[in-house]
Amino acid sequence: MLRTHTCGQLTEADIKKEVIICGWVQARRDHGKIIFIDLRDRYGITQVVFFPKPNPAVYEQAKKLGSEFVLKIRGTVGMRPKGTENPKIPTGLVEVFALEVEILNTSMELAFSIEDDIEAGEETRLLHRYLDLRRPKMLKRISLRHKFNQALRSYLNKQDFLEIETPFLTKSTPEGSRDYLVPSRLNPNKFYALPQSPQLFKQILMVSGMDRYYQIARCFRDEDLRKDRQPEFTQLDMEMSFVEEEDVMTLAENLIAAAFKEVLGIEIATPFLRIPYKEAMAKHGSDKPDVGQGDYRFLWVVDFPLFEYNNDEKRWQACHHPFTSPKLEDIPLLDSDIGATRARAYDLVLNGQEIAGGSIRIHSPQLQAKIFKTLGISDEDAEKKFGFLLRAFKYGAPPHGGIAFGLDRLCAIVTGAESIRDVIAFPKTQKGICPLSDAPSSVEDAQLKEVYIKMIEEEKK
Amino acid sequence: MLRTHTCGQLTEADIKKEVIICGWVQARRDHGKIIFIDLRDRYGITQVVFFPKPNPAVYEQAKKLGSEFVLKIRGTVGMRPKGTENPKIPTGLVEVFALEVEILNTSMELAFSIEDDIEAGEETRLLHRYLDLRRPKMLKRISLRHKFNQALRSYLNKQDFLEIETPFLTKSTPEGSRDYLVPSRLNPNKFYALPQSPQLFKQILMVSGMDRYYQIARCFRDEDLRKDRQPEFTQLDMEMSFVEEEDVMTLAENLIAAAFKEVLGIEIATPFLRIPYKEAMAKHGSDKPDVGQGDYRFLWVVDFPLFEYNNDEKRWQACHHPFTSPKLEDIPLLDSDIGATRARAYDLVLNGQEIAGGSIRIHSPQLQAKIFKTLGISDEDAEKKFGFLLRAFKYGAPPHGGIAFGLDRLCAIVTGAESIRDVIAFPKTQKGICPLSDAPSSVEDAQLKEVYIKMIEEEKK
Repeated sequence: MLRTHTCGQLTEADIKKEVIICGWVQARRDHGKIIFIDLRDRYGITQVVFFPKPNPAVYEQAKKLGSEFVLKIRGTVGMRPKGTENPKIPTGLVEVFALEVEILNTSMELAFSIEDDIEAGEETRLLHRYLDLRRPKMLKRISLRHKFNQALRSYLNKQDFLEIETPFLTKSTPEGSRDYLVPSRLNPNKFYALPQSPQLFKQILMVSGMDRYYQIARCFRDEDLRKDRQPEFTQLDMEMSFVEEEDVMTLAENLIAAAFKEVLGIEIATPFLRIPYKEAMAKHGSDKPDVGQGDYRFLWVVDFPLFEYNNDEKRWQACHHPFTSPKLEDIPLLDSDIGATRARAYDLVLNGQEIAGGSIRIHSPQLQAKIFKTLGISDEDAEKKFGFLLRAFKYGAPPHGGIAFGLDRLCAIVTGAESIRDVIAFPKTQKGICPLSDAPSSVEDAQLKEVYIKMIEEEKK
Repeated sequence: MLRTHTCGQLTEADIKKEVIICGWVQARRDHGKIIFIDLRDRYGITQVVFFPKPNPAVYEQAKKLGSEFVLKIRGTVGMRPKGTENPKIPTGLVEVFALEVEILNTSMELAFSIEDDIEAGEETRLLHRYLDLRRPKMLKRISLRHKFNQALRSYLNKQDFLEIETPFLTKSTPEGSRDYLVPSRLNPNKFYALPQSPQLFKQILMVSGMDRYYQIARCFRDEDLRKDRQPEFTQLDMEMSFVEEEDVMTLAENLIAAAFKEVLGIEIATPFLRIPYKEAMAKHGSDKPDVGQGDYRFLWVVDFPLFEYNNDEKRWQACHHPFTSPKLEDIPLLDSDIGATRARAYDLVLNGQEIAGGSIRIHSPQLQAKIFKTLGISDEDAEKKFGFLLRAFKYGAPPHGGIAFGLDRLCAIVTGAESIRDVIAFPKTQKGICPLSDAPSSVEDAQLKEVYIKMIEEEKK
């Protein structure tokens, strides 16, 4: 290591030690006969002092240090003079008397300063994301997200869940949202699709006997990006075998309670309030009602309708997805009153925002066939779109169900971020652009030719 | 839960308890007056017994149970008769006397049996992956991979690393391998590329002051698939600031040692042997020599040349990637003896296979410009391909370096799998096809039109 200590580490216990610290120049204060540098790294800020004596060369160097220069400083730890301590930071009682300075790198003038409150627009922040992420607020969000990930996994590991990766290059299933397509070079005129979620694969994993699966998985939907959507987003995706609604919901509650306790030190009371969909709509006019007390208002919305009528297309469609099981007592309604059939589905709402949703799935090929018929999906279409799941179901599919948490939204709520973009290291704008890397971009014609495609010009479309 | 116990749980301590277990029919043995079922789930196998009395209906049901039927069985736990115990399994002293059987699902006849040694070809195994994954060998591999992931993360978390997600929809940088392209709908005639690795983003994270980053990340390379390559593969990707070679290599050794200890209970001796590239080639004729003792033969190959001459294109190219730092004492050679310049790069070899590789990166814009010049990359090209990294470097980039482990290969070696396909839940064939889901597949013309592309027919290419 180039350093002996981080910038958040030195305390009274280190007085008189010779140390080496590395970091960025957060601030320089030139008081004439004495120059102060606040040196910053991820772990904190350490005050460095420069005097004209005994080493004028080092003092002269200090005069030229600009904001965000990267330094390696050798020095001796001392107490700050009485009255100049800063009790707000862990290193606030000490300072480092500089013996040697190495400029590891310089910095051009910044587009905005490395402080919590800046006036820069979001486009500028994203273009210079490496500066934006240096701000304490952003570092805190990224750190908290890291901790949440670990706490969630840790709880699930203890509950016998297996983390299993599912493919990103998969089959296009034109149901739900629009797929992102990836042309195949080895299979001319064929396309992969990026997964909208690992839904089909996690169900296959249950048929495979994995019993309990989870994955912190990236998902992709090519939607018109509203205020708080991203082309790629992250789910904590889970599935369990031999369960009923109660099991998945209880596990989800305990999972959330464990993570909040571990990461935020907050006790969340369980079980969460449960409100049937009809009541939520009648009383609160929303299927994501914001009721309850305390900073974190969790509640379940249950008893969703299985189908909703699509007036444009004059047909019934699945409210969640076509693998959601109807409530067993409502199965007769499939033939008499489709709209009244309730789903074995549950949404978790936090402060009026949906942060998770799931259901008990259909595991019977006969019931699945009946649902497809109700949805007007032909046998041929079902085979084409979901054939591999239906085939798997013929070889001993266990009863199963699951849930998926929207981690971007959960982290945004917990960190008080206005947008999910503030908890994603490298997000995209509403136009799906990454100002930092300039993606998406033009590519060479040869690259397109290799995958058997060519562009259509916009106006000719 | 539909069950009170798993199939791996019941022991002598549960004698006389009434229990409910769920699982798959692994085997049925009909001895005339007594029928045995081996009921299997992820956790083990429990023997269930059926007698004609007192409940003939349940006994009659047992006669019709086929392989891989999914059952829910209520019964009483009893000792197996003397001489019929199976000491090889944890549940081998007990059996469950069936009181009630519910068939949760049936199964068609299997393409192969759920046993370790089967003769089915790989295509058949992948088509019926949900059956293949039920085999004990495959379950063990998937479980071990899960444990490895947790052990690796656990070690890195303790060392102050932050897990940070980087984008999957990113910019095409035609350097290295071929990119997978994703046409953009919101940005006509522009394309995202799936990342070949998070290399540029992890370097940006260091410029962002994140200090220590890791991610278990999917990577994509559109290569002709040789024996043991996959279009998508998984890396444990890491980067650290203010480090030298020694720091990264020591951390990698300790990481591996901790994971092997925790997951396999095996002590790995560190530090690993280090062999300069020249010596490896001269003595062993390979840059991945298989030397040492013990089941696990780890060694580092160091002092790689920075450049290699491309005879076809008559130019020097980077052996690793163009961000790799030359050894400081070799910098003068850039002007006098390019081929002799050594890189600050290191590869980790296990049993003759490369399982990790990394380097100390260039953090000086001036040195980076010199390397690009040596590689014949024009300023314009450098700006087009890596502009965002070079821009970031102008705002205080710290010295940094890292390493990436190929987790598929590491898990394959550790589980004794012949191919990385055996440690990936849903791998693709050498043609890049997923026999299970039938990806890649044809898509609707309308889908292509929406993203401003059309197909070129194969023969017209």
